[in-house]
Parts: sequence; structure tokens; C-alpha cells
Amino acid sequence: MPKLHYEELRSILKQKMLKHNFQEESAGLCAKIFTENTFAGVASHGTNRFVSFLKLVNEGYIKPNAKPTLVKSFGNWEQWDGNLGPGPVNAWTASGRAIELAKENGMGCVALKNTNHWMRGGTYGWRAADEGVILISWTNTIPIMPPWGAKEPALGNNPFVLAVPRANGHVVIDMALSLFSFGKLSTYKIQGKELPYIGGYDSEGNLTTNPAEISATHRPLPVGLWKGSGLAILFDLIAVLLSGGKATFEIGNGKVDTAISQVFIAFDPLKFHNAESINNIANNIIASVKKAEPIIEGEEIFYPGERVQKTREQNLRDGVFVEEVIWERIAAL
Amino acid sequence: MPKLHYEELRSILKQKMLKHNFQEESAGLCAKIFTENTFAGVASHGTNRFVSFLKLVNEGYIKPNAKPTLVKSFGNWEQWDGNLGPGPVNAWTASGRAIELAKENGMGCVALKNTNHWMRGGTYGWRAADEGVILISWTNTIPIMPPWGAKEPALGNNPFVLAVPRANGHVVIDMALSLFSFGKLSTYKIQGKELPYIGGYDSEGNLTTNPAEISATHRPLPVGLWKGSGLAILFDLIAVLLSGGKATFEIGNGKVDTAISQVFIAFDPLKFHNAESINNIANNIIASVKKAEPIIEGEEIFYPGERVQKTREQNLRDGVFVEEVIWERIAAL
Repeated sequence: MPKLHYEELRSILKQKMLKHNFQEESAGLCAKIFTENTFAGVASHGTNRFVSFLKLVNEGYIKPNAKPTLVKSFGNWEQWDGNLGPGPVNAWTASGRAIELAKENGMGCVALKNTNHWMRGGTYGWRAADEGVILISWTNTIPIMPPWGAKEPALGNNPFVLAVPRANGHVVIDMALSLFSFGKLSTYKIQGKELPYIGGYDSEGNLTTNPAEISATHRPLPVGLWKGSGLAILFDLIAVLLSGGKATFEIGNGKVDTAISQVFIAFDPLKFHNAESINNIANNIIASVKKAEPIIEGEEIFYPGERVQKTREQNLRDGVFVEEVIWERIAAL
Repeated sequence: MPKLHYEELRSILKQKMLKHNFQEESAGLCAKIFTENTFAGVASHGTNRFVSFLKLVNEGYIKPNAKPTLVKSFGNWEQWDGNLGPGPVNAWTASGRAIELAKENGMGCVALKNTNHWMRGGTYGWRAADEGVILISWTNTIPIMPPWGAKEPALGNNPFVLAVPRANGHVVIDMALSLFSFGKLSTYKIQGKELPYIGGYDSEGNLTTNPAEISATHRPLPVGLWKGSGLAILFDLIAVLLSGGKATFEIGNGKVDTAISQVFIAFDPLKFHNAESINNIANNIIASVKKAEPIIEGEEIFYPGERVQKTREQNLRDGVFVEEVIWERIAAL
């Protein structure tokens, strides 16, 4: 099939949502975020996920037009209820409010309960950076990763996002606490590829590079082995304490990844620096990293966010490729 | 040699510091922290590090009696200057101030520049948890880890600490962004052991489990490979923006790990929960993790901080063992 342009994809996704009980505002924002994710090269949380997102809406797990509401606040730390609305709408609103709190008070925190999958966590990092703000953010999930030493999933892989604004391209990391996220496993699976590194266990309990086996066993390896396992426990615990929401084991009592908890902590660096000094600091750090001697002569060293930005620019220029099988499923909605 | 009791070790370390230009207050606090670290089972940042700590004092890199001072503040985000004082004194003071800000305002952040190695980052996590407060904290370091794809160190391994209070034992993670910290490498080296997992590269560019080789090449593997590398860049960048201090590459211009930057973000969970509800949340999450079926039948699944607490209790009861060679060097100071 031909490549799709940004407005084309956004408009089609929006129409599909309007057909499935979304009202204008929610359909518009979700369409923008699913399109952005696809153009950023993260189809696993864009077009490839759209059909199952609408399925959860149609099954009643995601309330298409619910909006997040403020529950309680203490100073510049606020607790919001996602009211089981679409994860992208809730996370967009919560990150926006954290940015606002940071601009007013230097720093701010919004902790969100009863929300749904935010799709690509990086979306909210790039968004904060676009507004000149530093973001520290994470989410919990349904149990999909065993604690270190166990073979049964009891942890979320709790994606973690850090973002810093920079004029020549923001510095943003968006990482699941499993070495490969389930989205990434699914991308390798669709492409018929093996993982480049051992990523988890197969059904016989052996370490494997086969993405389908790991998706099936729910036994991915945590980043840093015992360390990622510990991080997942702490991120879950802190998300629950800050938001008053559900923990991974409670989310796991349901059948799907719903009513999850998220944290958005923002800082406005303009409170202590001017824009030029922020850029200089970021540029100098990036230059120091990029000039490190590569293992393979001539290879480039990348900073977090660099390739996402290049992919996005290229896709905006050339249009984005959507797998035929995915496109047929979206068209049929 | 016989095992040492807590007061015995603390008093000896304090006397040694008083002999090396420390005044009462700084010697007392540093002795307490070096002793705590040793009793927590982290001798690499306790007794094993004490001689090189005093060497840096005697060489003028660490000002033994300098105290941190407030530079600027905006709301509940403060920038402090460590004035090149002892890292443990500065980090203790900064974490204490972050705790105070959290108790007043719900949340608070102290970002510290011009400080020195804080020894065991977990110290400040346990301390915050002792005061009922959640801590999110990290430090940058001199370049000791290559960015992903490079063979030359250009990143710190920037230890990261998360701590949550719990009546039956706090939940605390303290992790370097290399799979094995340099302290851990040194412990394996002293014990003549190989690492249990591949931890980095040897001098010929091959992956190895030999701790001495990795210490020598400064090529440890980051946690989660490319992910830990990205985290190290972002933690450095955010620490510099929040504190106004030096970045890893600037610290690297000097000969030693000095004038580093640290971040302490604290939340007081009592603003939204009572003490019983905090314990219930933590207990339930920990129970859900500990009951996951182990890979090896009968093995226990641990939560972060569990073994540190047991080690500390055992050492407080029985005394702590200090390697003969280490003790001779301390006695000679």
C-alpha cells in the first residue's frame, strides 16, 4: 500500500473513533497521539495498537469521553482520577497540568489513578520538552514480568520517561523496565526477526532471543536483571502512594491492563537558567557523549531521542508505511 | 581479627578523622555514615573506602569542615552548594532539607552542586524512609562507563536511589547504572571471585566476568545495555540543570571524582494517607511480589532493601568483619 501522510492518518483514525462513540474532543486528541506515535516510528503504540484500543472501548474498559478530574491537592502535588478514560487523553491532561504547576511553582507533580494505557510514554516527555519543561514520569501496568528469581509474572514493566528540552532536538528516554517492551517484542514478531540480545525465557525455561516465546511466557528479563526487578517494585509502590490508585497486583486481578496509576513530575529550568544556558548545557553534554570513540570504527553514538526525531522528520516528509494486515483491520472498523 | 562492634568502629573512624583536620561535627557525622554503610553490608563504601576518602581530604580535594550553603530557591525547589565538603555531610544535609521541604509542602527538591562522593546512596534513602518520607535521588560521577556503542568512558554510572517508608522494613533500591558498581567490582576482586553475570569488557575488547579487567578498562555494561546508557545521559543532564553544577564531562576534566552534582526529591505520603494505609499499601505490594513462584523450588524472592536490613541487624548483633589488610591500613592512618 502507498505511504500515508500525517493529516491523512490522523483524519482516518479520528473518523473511526467518531464512529465508535467518541465525541469530537477525545477523538481529536487520541487521533493526534496515535498518529504522532506512528510517525515517531513507534507503530507498536500507534497504528498497530489502534484496533485493540477500540476493542477495549467497545468492551467498556475504556470510557471514550471520560475526562480526568482533580481529587485532592497539597501545595503543588495533585492527585487526579482518570475516570477510566482513554489513557492518551488522561496522560496528556495530567502532563499538561504538571507542566503548568512547574511553570507556576518551579516544580509540580500530578499523580493519576484509574487511567488506561498511555500508549507511548515518550509522547508526554516530548510534549513537556516542547513546552520547555523537564519531565520525570512513569506508569505501572498489569503483571507481565517476574520478580528476579521467580518464574511467574508479578511485576509491571512500568515504563519510565525522562525528558529535557533542547532547541536542536529534545533529549528524551522512554524505556520499559524489561529489556524489550512487549510493543518491541510484537514488532520483532511481526517482522519475523529474532531479538538482537537474549530477552527472556521460553516455555521450557531456557533463555531465548525469540520474541513470540517471551510474549507467551510473560517472562522478559528486567533491565539490569535484579536491578530492573527492584525498580519495578519501587515505581509501582511510589505511583500508588502518590496517586492513591491501584497497584500492579490489583490491576492483575482484572483481565485487562486498566485502572492503572501514573506519575508526572515536572521542573521548569527557566527558574534558574535562561534559554541559552539550558541549550548550552544540553549541547555540551551531548557533544561529550557523541565524541566517545565507537567500538566499530565509523559508527555513530546516539543520544536518547536522536533517532526518534530523525524518524519523525523523515516520516513527515515521505509519509509513513503501515503494514497491509494492520491497515485492513483499521479499515474494517 | 575479631569482629568489631558498632560503637567501636564509629569511635575509631572518628578519632582518625579528628587526627586529619576534621572538626567534631563533621567527623561525627562521617564516622556514623561510614559505620552505617559497613554494618549495612556495603564495606565498599564503608571501611574499604575510608583510606582513600582521607587521602582525598589530605590532597585538598575534600574540604573536611566545609558545610553546604543555600544558593537560590524557587518555591520548594532549592539549589545548594556543597563547597567541596565531604560527600556524606553534604548529602546528609541536602536530603535532610528535602525531607523538611516535603513535610512543609508535600514535596520538595534539593539539588546540590560542588559536592563529593556520597559513598552509599542508600544511606540517604534509608534516612528519608526513617523520617516517613519517599525519596527519589541520584548523583552524577566522573566518566567511568562508555555510552552504548562506544569503547571510551564518557558517562557516569550515576547511582539512583528510590526509598519508601514501611514499619516492618523500608523498601529501598540503591543502584549504579552499570550492572556492577565499581564498589561491587572491587568487592569481588578482594574476594578473588568472578562476577555471576557478564559485566563488561576486558582489555582485548571481549565480554568478561573478571572484575579486575572491567575496573581497569572502565568498560562496564550499563543496566539494560542501551537503556542504562541513555538513563546515565539524562540523569547527568537533569542533575546539572536542577543544581547548576558540573556535568560528568566537566568532572572528567579533573583527575578525581570531585565537584559532582546530586538531586534529592522528597514526598511526604502523610499528606494523602495515614500511617496505617501507607503500611498496608507497602505490605500488600511486597506480599504480592514475595509469593511469586520461584525458578528454583524453595528459594525466597526478596524485595529491595530486605537483605540490607537483615545484614544490618545481624552485624549489629554479632559485630562486623573487616578484612585484615583493610584494617591495617586504617590503623596506620
